[in-house]
Amino acid sequence: MKKFSWNVKKSSTKNNARTGEILTPHGKIHTPAFIFCATKASLKSFSTVEAKKNNTQIILSNTYHLMLQPGGELIANHGGLHKFMNWEGPMLTDSGGFQIFSLGHGSVADEIKGRSNAIKNKSLLNINEEGSLFKSYLDGSFKLLSPEKSIQIQRNLGADLILVFDECTPFHVDKTYTNSSMKRSHRWAIRSFNSLNTNIKFKSGFGSAGEQKLYGIVQGGIYEDLREESIDFNLNKMDTFGIAIGGSLGSSKEEMYKVVKFSAPKLGNKHPIHLLGIGDPNDIWNLVKSGIDTFDCVSPTRLARHGTALIKGKKGKLNIKNVRFGKDLSPIDKNCQCSTCRNYSLAYLHHLFKSGELLGLNLITSHNIFFMNNLMSIIRDSIENDNLERAEKEWFS
Amino acid sequence: MKKFSWNVKKSSTKNNARTGEILTPHGKIHTPAFIFCATKASLKSFSTVEAKKNNTQIILSNTYHLMLQPGGELIANHGGLHKFMNWEGPMLTDSGGFQIFSLGHGSVADEIKGRSNAIKNKSLLNINEEGSLFKSYLDGSFKLLSPEKSIQIQRNLGADLILVFDECTPFHVDKTYTNSSMKRSHRWAIRSFNSLNTNIKFKSGFGSAGEQKLYGIVQGGIYEDLREESIDFNLNKMDTFGIAIGGSLGSSKEEMYKVVKFSAPKLGNKHPIHLLGIGDPNDIWNLVKSGIDTFDCVSPTRLARHGTALIKGKKGKLNIKNVRFGKDLSPIDKNCQCSTCRNYSLAYLHHLFKSGELLGLNLITSHNIFFMNNLMSIIRDSIENDNLERAEKEWFS
Repeated sequence: MKKFSWNVKKSSTKNNARTGEILTPHGKIHTPAFIFCATKASLKSFSTVEAKKNNTQIILSNTYHLMLQPGGELIANHGGLHKFMNWEGPMLTDSGGFQIFSLGHGSVADEIKGRSNAIKNKSLLNINEEGSLFKSYLDGSFKLLSPEKSIQIQRNLGADLILVFDECTPFHVDKTYTNSSMKRSHRWAIRSFNSLNTNIKFKSGFGSAGEQKLYGIVQGGIYEDLREESIDFNLNKMDTFGIAIGGSLGSSKEEMYKVVKFSAPKLGNKHPIHLLGIGDPNDIWNLVKSGIDTFDCVSPTRLARHGTALIKGKKGKLNIKNVRFGKDLSPIDKNCQCSTCRNYSLAYLHHLFKSGELLGLNLITSHNIFFMNNLMSIIRDSIENDNLERAEKEWFS
Repeated sequence: MKKFSWNVKKSSTKNNARTGEILTPHGKIHTPAFIFCATKASLKSFSTVEAKKNNTQIILSNTYHLMLQPGGELIANHGGLHKFMNWEGPMLTDSGGFQIFSLGHGSVADEIKGRSNAIKNKSLLNINEEGSLFKSYLDGSFKLLSPEKSIQIQRNLGADLILVFDECTPFHVDKTYTNSSMKRSHRWAIRSFNSLNTNIKFKSGFGSAGEQKLYGIVQGGIYEDLREESIDFNLNKMDTFGIAIGGSLGSSKEEMYKVVKFSAPKLGNKHPIHLLGIGDPNDIWNLVKSGIDTFDCVSPTRLARHGTALIKGKKGKLNIKNVRFGKDLSPIDKNCQCSTCRNYSLAYLHHLFKSGELLGLNLITSHNIFFMNNLMSIIRDSIENDNLERAEKEWFS
């Protein structure tokens, strides 16, 4: 029996939207799907037991954080991340490259989403052919992450889907740098691929490692010719299971949409396509039309911890701390079937945030996770029924 | 059909331990029982939905905190605390007296448990016959709490079991002050009782108020003649449903045990007896033998938030942050049936605390709540089987 497979189930007649199924040894992911960030092997205020109840299909953890604390070997000895954090479903890990870049240069979100930002907390010391040298944010010690090292750690972590090691090129660099960085990331991708295949043959020492499948990453910044070159590399020079769209997506939403609309359709339907670091519902509605199968972002859980609940419609968000909710006996959304909306009022949630009760973080996180899973379910259904545009209109009406 | 009742089910042949049932409009409490503190209408990192799953019978909230934020009227308009926090089971509120005292004079735990402590955060401005004047910890505004005011707020909150308004006498005052304070608290108890009965006749304006039953409080500090006088007052001059043992319980555990052993048996079996603010498992095993039916304390949930898990045995506690748990693949207690012990290892819990992930607080809170409910269940069973001493030995072996 196949442990991994990918198939497109239904394609839109109007655009590149599609539904599909990613089979992994830990279960099936119905796409388009959202991947929640359990950065340090937890969804912050939320347990994996609760995440499953909220229809979560897949979560991801970050190699960068886990290599520093508690370390890949400890997790391997524990039988891998699945057992460590008690998550029996599909899981993805990134390669660590993105964090080295984002923690090294400044803010993650500012960079990937193209907002200019002063360089701060510069922990990235050097990038060369071997890999990236950086300082641990925990103790300042020097760490080298290379393609081989990243794959070894990801083998220890044991997620079903893993990523090639790359440099996530900042948006403010010029085309020459973007080009040479892309070419190096391609060489790193080949080393990542070879490293995984070597490891598969010699399993000892990789405690958790069942079979794992690799995602390549399309680089090239905002330059169409570079994106084309990277797409060709990923499709024809590599033999990865999935392909992610990474690197800089420009300095505005429009540029980001443009890059994805240009790149994703060219990737065809032989691989599931992941878009790295994007999770705004507006963006998701927009970008599934280009053929994106999976998304990930910290925003649903991070917003929750700041008291922001996701809602349908143009506004898209409620700030629970707003004084107008102090006496509001209704739930966040009276049509929402999540445990928070079925059990607790806005007035109560407002009270929890105003009085600093931790439960507030948990309850809004629960709602936002349920919300995102429900959003993806609606999107899948509407693609199946070939009425995505109507569903989108209804969502925002 | 009766909405409230109390009956002793089984009495020990060897001491004053007993099992019983407190019937309330929101269900039955099997005693001896532990009451968890949802101070500001939440169990901090834990939801009422989860508390119910962990076999919680009854929770309490604090009038002092809720009168300041979000206010009794808002909660009454919400249909009462039960609906506000989505707790369908029995509930108790205190009168606010204890917090005025403890926040007014210094630390709660230091005072009630008799540890001497520098006076700090003095927010208690004055006590006279009318009531207690204090400064709000939120905005420094002046607030008066009187028996009538306390009962009015407790009516708004709508808990099943409510407390008379009292002064919780500090342990460092002399007998003369303890005596005059006790006599004033008795006068306040009568005013509380009258206020409740007036309110019951005129229900309008008390949004949440179904029927509620009052607990008197035995005062008298460490002085046996004063305790006797207060016991006589509570048994013969008042007509309350339950009786709590309050006031100063001395400056050591030995004094505390002595006060309870002296007082509780004299209270007989016509009322459920509550011991205010005590929740250490050692103390509970000891004091059920004097006939205490219910206990409350913030400790199980507060310890959890500091990374301390409750366990059986003499030691009684595990500090999850201890480095020796970093690689420990076993749960807190391999025989524990709680969700945390069934799903997560010490190594994972240790990782959550070391890396500052909020989920750690939730998971240890879950264990500690389950643990306390299990402890009380074992105590009840052993009283029913008249082998409390043997069960206690097994617990600590």
